[in-house]
Amino acid sequence: DGDTPVPTAAAAPAAGAVARPAKLGLCMACHGADGTSRTPGTPHLGGQDRLYLERALGDYRSGKRQHVPMTSLANSLQPADIEALAAWYAAQPGFAAGAAP
Amino acid sequence: DGDTPVPTAAAAPAAGAVARPAKLGLCMACHGADGTSRTPGTPHLGGQDRLYLERALGDYRSGKRQHVPMTSLANSLQPADIEALAAWYAAQPGFAAGAAP
Repeated sequence: DGDTPVPTAAAAPAAGAVARPAKLGLCMACHGADGTSRTPGTPHLGGQDRLYLERALGDYRSGKRQHVPMTSLANSLQPADIEALAAWYAAQPGFAAGAAP
Repeated sequence: DGDTPVPTAAAAPAAGAVARPAKLGLCMACHGADGTSRTPGTPHLGGQDRLYLERALGDYRSGKRQHVPMTSLANSLQPADIEALAAWYAAQPGFAAGAAP
């Protein structure tokens, strides 16, 4: 029915509402804890779309997407880690806060 | 020497400084003209790292990265289009504006 609010990609939960993932340390060197890229060529992740992040990590894990070092890092993640990392980065300010309304 | 400012990925040019790409229309339905994702699962692009965007489009064009409809869209782009689109989206507020300082 038309009343059910359609979840929009930009409606990320507040940063404080998401637990810090156990494996965040694997990501921080390049992506930062807040998802601000540390080096040109490395994507920003803060506020990114959660489903996209889950799919990207899943693709690195399955080999559908190849990249050094993402492939080996993703292989060390369990599905629960992937969900926790995607939720964490999606909840960081980054895109969501800066995006046009 | 230590004085030369290291270009950080977040120091994107002001949005007004980048020309609107001729092929932006191919991207807008899913990514929006400002890079704010229109559907869950589609990544935000606004303020993203320019080199990353160039590489992603290049990978879709070369087939290293596969996705419907990105593969066919990227095949319709010339290198100059890829540079223009990457520069445009990197210059949008999105991530760069919302990222932690």
